[in-house]
Amino acid sequence: RGSGGLVPRRAWAAPTVLRPIGVLAMSGFIQEARSIDDCLRLAAEGLSFPWNVRRRTVGVSDALLRRSSADIAAPEPYPPFTRSLRDGYAVCHAATTGASESSPAFLKFAGEVVMGAAPPFCIAPDEAALIPTGGMMPEGADAVVMTENAASSDGWVEVRASVQRGENLALESEEIKRSDVLIRRGDVIGCSAPGLLCALGISEVEVMDMRIGVISTGDEVVPADARSVPAGAIRDADTYIVQSILKKYGEASKSYGIAPDDWPALEARAHEAMAECDVVIISGGSSVGARDNTARLIESVGDPGLLIRGINMTPGKPTLIGGSVKDGKLMIGLPGHPLSCVVSTVFVVLPLLDAMCGGGGGAGKYVKLPLASDVQGRTGPDEFIPARLEDGGVRPLAAKSGYISAMMGADGFIRLRPDTETLRAGETAEVWLW
Amino acid sequence: RGSGGLVPRRAWAAPTVLRPIGVLAMSGFIQEARSIDDCLRLAAEGLSFPWNVRRRTVGVSDALLRRSSADIAAPEPYPPFTRSLRDGYAVCHAATTGASESSPAFLKFAGEVVMGAAPPFCIAPDEAALIPTGGMMPEGADAVVMTENAASSDGWVEVRASVQRGENLALESEEIKRSDVLIRRGDVIGCSAPGLLCALGISEVEVMDMRIGVISTGDEVVPADARSVPAGAIRDADTYIVQSILKKYGEASKSYGIAPDDWPALEARAHEAMAECDVVIISGGSSVGARDNTARLIESVGDPGLLIRGINMTPGKPTLIGGSVKDGKLMIGLPGHPLSCVVSTVFVVLPLLDAMCGGGGGAGKYVKLPLASDVQGRTGPDEFIPARLEDGGVRPLAAKSGYISAMMGADGFIRLRPDTETLRAGETAEVWLW
Repeated sequence: RGSGGLVPRRAWAAPTVLRPIGVLAMSGFIQEARSIDDCLRLAAEGLSFPWNVRRRTVGVSDALLRRSSADIAAPEPYPPFTRSLRDGYAVCHAATTGASESSPAFLKFAGEVVMGAAPPFCIAPDEAALIPTGGMMPEGADAVVMTENAASSDGWVEVRASVQRGENLALESEEIKRSDVLIRRGDVIGCSAPGLLCALGISEVEVMDMRIGVISTGDEVVPADARSVPAGAIRDADTYIVQSILKKYGEASKSYGIAPDDWPALEARAHEAMAECDVVIISGGSSVGARDNTARLIESVGDPGLLIRGINMTPGKPTLIGGSVKDGKLMIGLPGHPLSCVVSTVFVVLPLLDAMCGGGGGAGKYVKLPLASDVQGRTGPDEFIPARLEDGGVRPLAAKSGYISAMMGADGFIRLRPDTETLRAGETAEVWLW
Repeated sequence: RGSGGLVPRRAWAAPTVLRPIGVLAMSGFIQEARSIDDCLRLAAEGLSFPWNVRRRTVGVSDALLRRSSADIAAPEPYPPFTRSLRDGYAVCHAATTGASESSPAFLKFAGEVVMGAAPPFCIAPDEAALIPTGGMMPEGADAVVMTENAASSDGWVEVRASVQRGENLALESEEIKRSDVLIRRGDVIGCSAPGLLCALGISEVEVMDMRIGVISTGDEVVPADARSVPAGAIRDADTYIVQSILKKYGEASKSYGIAPDDWPALEARAHEAMAECDVVIISGGSSVGARDNTARLIESVGDPGLLIRGINMTPGKPTLIGGSVKDGKLMIGLPGHPLSCVVSTVFVVLPLLDAMCGGGGGAGKYVKLPLASDVQGRTGPDEFIPARLEDGGVRPLAAKSGYISAMMGADGFIRLRPDTETLRAGETAEVWLW
């Protein structure tokens, strides 16, 4: 490796020279780190995903932003009966043909539909019944004339506009048929779901209930609530970064504190987490020593151990993936730089959890937007640049991987795929939004 | 109103004819309902927003997705000290000028920076010190040579690449200066905030803690968990629609059940909610009777009472806004149709809460995207069409305002502003995303 006559120091510097992160020395040749997609596929295969993860039954309100553990099918149709969408008169549409302001149709008043009850009468072709919005259509009627276009007195209804069959009403099961699948296994239950589930009489949902543990590592890291911080030390941020992103996308997690950069301490902390958790996420200290300890730890959990050591992405390259199929433990090592940690959590951890659950993929949204300014890229890695929405387009934000503030004010990331290089202002970029 | 010789029935149909929702009869002339923006401005003025709302101190983790009640400023700079962003050697950049693989610079080895501690030595211009990523830069050094470009032995460091001043390091306070404002009053605390706050030693945050009550109304509405539903009745969905959207955008709320379409029942239910809450949201039954009761209720709360009766938007027109400045009560009536209820909650309730808090506006994101198919619009109202992201663009989804399933599979809404009519496939539409 071209170090001339110099002997490498017997310190952590040496392995770095021989084995830089992201490059694997295999059978005598150097292999570049693989793409995110390849790594996710290899991890899913190597760990025999999907797993049969823990699950729990919760009320519909508590299911919001959690993942469904099964397909949810409609137990009944919706609407449950044919309903009026307007205040007006239920009629046979044929009786209104040609009706207008100057030439109204006159129909016999047949009665009034009461909200929340089945009408006790039918409608003959020459009849009309008063019906409120949401009222159940009487037998025989197939359209509703809006109140604005009708008036009634003395047992007659004057209709001043024609309606078509089905106008101003929602047919029974028009929206949802019995057994229609509403939510797929693994889907994050979004804002729109609880109302729909409740309307169909589903008041409880079984959600995924994985146990996820988060460990921060690094000799320089002190707890976030430390009163004073020694010179050279920094407060723990990665734990909160990881936990916040997981929470936003449906997963509860537990912090197992900070482990220093020594092997017995990390091992002890990790085993404590593994005893309780299905997934253990170790946000690496930023030093090589911490990363090596994390790699050693993941290697030690058994078959298959460490599967992915470095991913061809920027930032986020020093990401590690492995685990134990037998014990059902997914182990992930994240880079310590805050921005790298965010990117790896979003683009590696969340898809891994999706794969582990056997569904989903609802984290964030991709859109294509015009760039407000140039963005520098290069062929090879997947690149992620924090970005802010602006005038309907997107502006890249300057950031180093060590930047913890880079995500403040950012709405998501511009993603430059491996084959994309620099893009100019006005060109369209792929954007991932929170 | 052109009803000829017919006498209006003495039922709920009559007031509808004389005073259709969305049109105000004022001093002898008919005034069209105003735009969303006008209504929000009028409501904010009429209710003397912002109010001094309740607040509560919570731990940083619990602050996620809640609104900050004050500007949050940085108590200390970040980084707290000048740090290396790489594993390598801390040097004076000038000493590396012209260094290359074929013509390396040789510097004296001055020592090793230990993680989490201030280095006990300085760097002279002809010296270099081993430093890990995240390590504190020693005095005198102003750049870092990456490990890949250097090697050391026998007290010397061989540098095979030149570096510029500041290369591979983050300067003290480079990202955040003391007193920089990180989060504004009213902002929803997003995923990226907890990590940053923790890094700066902020472990508690004061958040808005409004009490919001939600009431469903309608004779046809039965509780969502009802075992069986009588013919003509439907389960309550609006309560869950409103509560889910509020929860997603940072607000807890409490359900006060379902009130039937009679005045004393609604009044009693509303007063129960008003005794405990700052905001009362009444999702109207779909009938005119329920809407009239809600309007009467809001009118009755005193000064200014009912301010907005109908908004020029589709769906969502029968939205009511009012309240009492003296008692600090914001009262909102929402249309009962599920899709209308969603649209009014997102585009009226959330901005009203923002205005009440005196900040924010973080609910959802607007982008401009090409349409996958035509979308029908008309001049006049703000129109909202559920839409799904597709290949980086957007596809409008067919929906009636009574549709409860319209939001399933939707990523947001296409918004057609008052001056926008029909748009064709390929044209760019404004899209609001969850």
